[in-house]
Amino acid sequence: MRPLKKNNINNRMKATIVTIGDEILIGQIVDTNSGYIAKALDKIGIQTHEMLSISDDKQHILDTFTKLQNQVDLVIITGGLGPTKDDITKKTFCDYFEDVLVEDQAVLAHVTEIIENFYKRPINQLNKEQALVPSKCEVLFNKMGTAPGMWMKKENTVFVSLPGVPYEMKYLVDQEIVPKLVKEYQRPHIVHQTILTYGQGESMVAERIEAWENNLPHFIKLAYLPAPGRVRLRLTARGGNKEVLEKAVRENVASLAAIIGDIIVGFDEDETIEVVVGKLLATQGKTLATAESCTGGKIAQMITSVAGASGYFKGSIVSYSNTAKVDVLGISPELIAQHDVVSAEVAQAMAVNTKRLLQADYAIATTGNAGPTSEPGKAEVGVVFIALATPETVLVSEFNFGQPREKVIDRAVNKALEMLQQAILRKTV
Amino acid sequence: MRPLKKNNINNRMKATIVTIGDEILIGQIVDTNSGYIAKALDKIGIQTHEMLSISDDKQHILDTFTKLQNQVDLVIITGGLGPTKDDITKKTFCDYFEDVLVEDQAVLAHVTEIIENFYKRPINQLNKEQALVPSKCEVLFNKMGTAPGMWMKKENTVFVSLPGVPYEMKYLVDQEIVPKLVKEYQRPHIVHQTILTYGQGESMVAERIEAWENNLPHFIKLAYLPAPGRVRLRLTARGGNKEVLEKAVRENVASLAAIIGDIIVGFDEDETIEVVVGKLLATQGKTLATAESCTGGKIAQMITSVAGASGYFKGSIVSYSNTAKVDVLGISPELIAQHDVVSAEVAQAMAVNTKRLLQADYAIATTGNAGPTSEPGKAEVGVVFIALATPETVLVSEFNFGQPREKVIDRAVNKALEMLQQAILRKTV
Repeated sequence: MRPLKKNNINNRMKATIVTIGDEILIGQIVDTNSGYIAKALDKIGIQTHEMLSISDDKQHILDTFTKLQNQVDLVIITGGLGPTKDDITKKTFCDYFEDVLVEDQAVLAHVTEIIENFYKRPINQLNKEQALVPSKCEVLFNKMGTAPGMWMKKENTVFVSLPGVPYEMKYLVDQEIVPKLVKEYQRPHIVHQTILTYGQGESMVAERIEAWENNLPHFIKLAYLPAPGRVRLRLTARGGNKEVLEKAVRENVASLAAIIGDIIVGFDEDETIEVVVGKLLATQGKTLATAESCTGGKIAQMITSVAGASGYFKGSIVSYSNTAKVDVLGISPELIAQHDVVSAEVAQAMAVNTKRLLQADYAIATTGNAGPTSEPGKAEVGVVFIALATPETVLVSEFNFGQPREKVIDRAVNKALEMLQQAILRKTV
Repeated sequence: MRPLKKNNINNRMKATIVTIGDEILIGQIVDTNSGYIAKALDKIGIQTHEMLSISDDKQHILDTFTKLQNQVDLVIITGGLGPTKDDITKKTFCDYFEDVLVEDQAVLAHVTEIIENFYKRPINQLNKEQALVPSKCEVLFNKMGTAPGMWMKKENTVFVSLPGVPYEMKYLVDQEIVPKLVKEYQRPHIVHQTILTYGQGESMVAERIEAWENNLPHFIKLAYLPAPGRVRLRLTARGGNKEVLEKAVRENVASLAAIIGDIIVGFDEDETIEVVVGKLLATQGKTLATAESCTGGKIAQMITSVAGASGYFKGSIVSYSNTAKVDVLGISPELIAQHDVVSAEVAQAMAVNTKRLLQADYAIATTGNAGPTSEPGKAEVGVVFIALATPETVLVSEFNFGQPREKVIDRAVNKALEMLQQAILRKTV
């Protein structure tokens, strides 16, 4: 990586992200690591030139390194670092950098601890080999697993090797690589600001903010990132002076808020619906419970994937059987017989009873047919009823989410969380 | 693509898959098209050499074409074919093949029909331009959308361009490209076999099967695909005689089963633990319920992601609060006060009570601290108790799954399903 001259903002740092693994090349797994890395680099002003997936073959890896040498400033490699012999990135590193493997004592102690504490057995030869690293490399300590990250430099290009396991890769990117790049390399400044809007479509939002958009300074770019029911607007400012960029972004966000403040719900790029809802509940000191039939616990799973959820989530009854609905949720068998288990009436009763049973302020209930089959006279595939009990009332809506099963479940989960978010926001405004 | 001589099995057809789009390079969307295409090619014996994601830049696309020319037999390109101005694959095709765009009457009629029938308006200039194709190309008719696929050849390399919209791409791959390749090109045979193992780590499995692995015939390749708590082994045999390949794979799987039969749980590539457990329960006419604290409903969500789960899954109590544990599950507050909510005793009571409450044959219970923080004197981050109530007994185990939160939850879910699977298998044997 060229150390950039101060204020030389046109000199963009370029990176190529390489994924190693035959399993990707035969389509058995989808590479999600490259996207994560690209996003992290983009945030600190480093441009991803290409993403590349190659095989576990040593010559293929060597050829790739040679090709990328001095073509880009930074090469980030994931995969090929596990303990079995189809994992060969480390040996190829040694070849490419004309280096030898040496035992890293800190890594060895860490591997030993993981194996002995987690697997309850002594380490074997393959585990020991994980502590071998090229002698010239800078070890990136992997707190999350046994394979260390490695940072090597040759001429103008830095090569970083990371394990392919997503949470290990994420840990090393967030805790080691990004801070190191930020500290050691001067990059053009990039200031991103995301504005989350809710409830109006892309073209409608675009129409409302047209004049504002036309008046943006030349160094601020606007992107529309639409999703069902919501639009994220992303401002990206690039330049040599961070303060100037930040001030301009701040001012333009303020003038935007004056125009579409009614539909802005947040400003955090990574904010997912479960995080947004969690923050709303936490801020207001309110609690949530769910009763899930067709969504099978997925709403609970998403809510509880957020750290701190125990502060506002009371729990869920996944009522996949009539036993669960009748004996746990206290739905009367007559109501089910009269209206069918997939009905507005049953959804409403599920929400009301769950709210009371788990002593929550809000309760979501779902009942539907996610497919793939339906019985004669019963709800067809894709039909879902969602009920939301709030402190004041109960709302019930019917949807048809089509198919396949996966899509029905996902849409039902998102729609339910959206209904909750809107209900809380209505109370707030 | 070279027309292959009969039985010339060493002459591998090689493909590179190229994705065009800035949105991929900034990590905004994940490329799932390449995996789909690679899988389809792999099934008909065509090896994917590399996958590559590049920007919407004309020169970048031209440079890529030039580099791939005669390096591989087949280049499949997705993206860059829509009606807006940042989509430039078609114009670049014309440049690269020194060709001109001409109006394709069949495509124009199709585009007109889609716009008029679906959007209820006359076609505009941008729509008309979608019917323009390079004069030398073979049009791949896109029944699913307005952008046609294009098949061009230059020297030894075929270039195929496809729209980036997944269901349009899939349609053209399945209905046009694969049949055309099968009909026009001779390819080597490929036989895959996946072996699913549970309960031992990658290095442990590798150690046990080392001698077997070293004795594999040269035309069979072994790959390890580890995930928390499980390892998939994949055998890939390539050659000219399908029967020989199949026989060799069959024999080697049999000799592998003789060594690690105790941890082999299935042979279906797409078979996940939730599918395996579901089949076991369905076959034996047994039912399952779960009580989930730290796993937050994820076990239920995985079980119910399988079609037909309502036949054996009774439901789940996601007891994220003491209210849920005491009022719904009927755990005594004294038990919680005495042993802490994260304890073997509470896990056991959760499993036993849930089994009775939901009238299930098996009940899984989880309670633990997924993090990120722990209170003084309470369970540290990563500690999880899993209880399994079977028709005969209750098993409780303590684990430390480390961190981060995501990993603790995933490992707990997998371990719980593994305990269930083993318990059912023990009954079967």
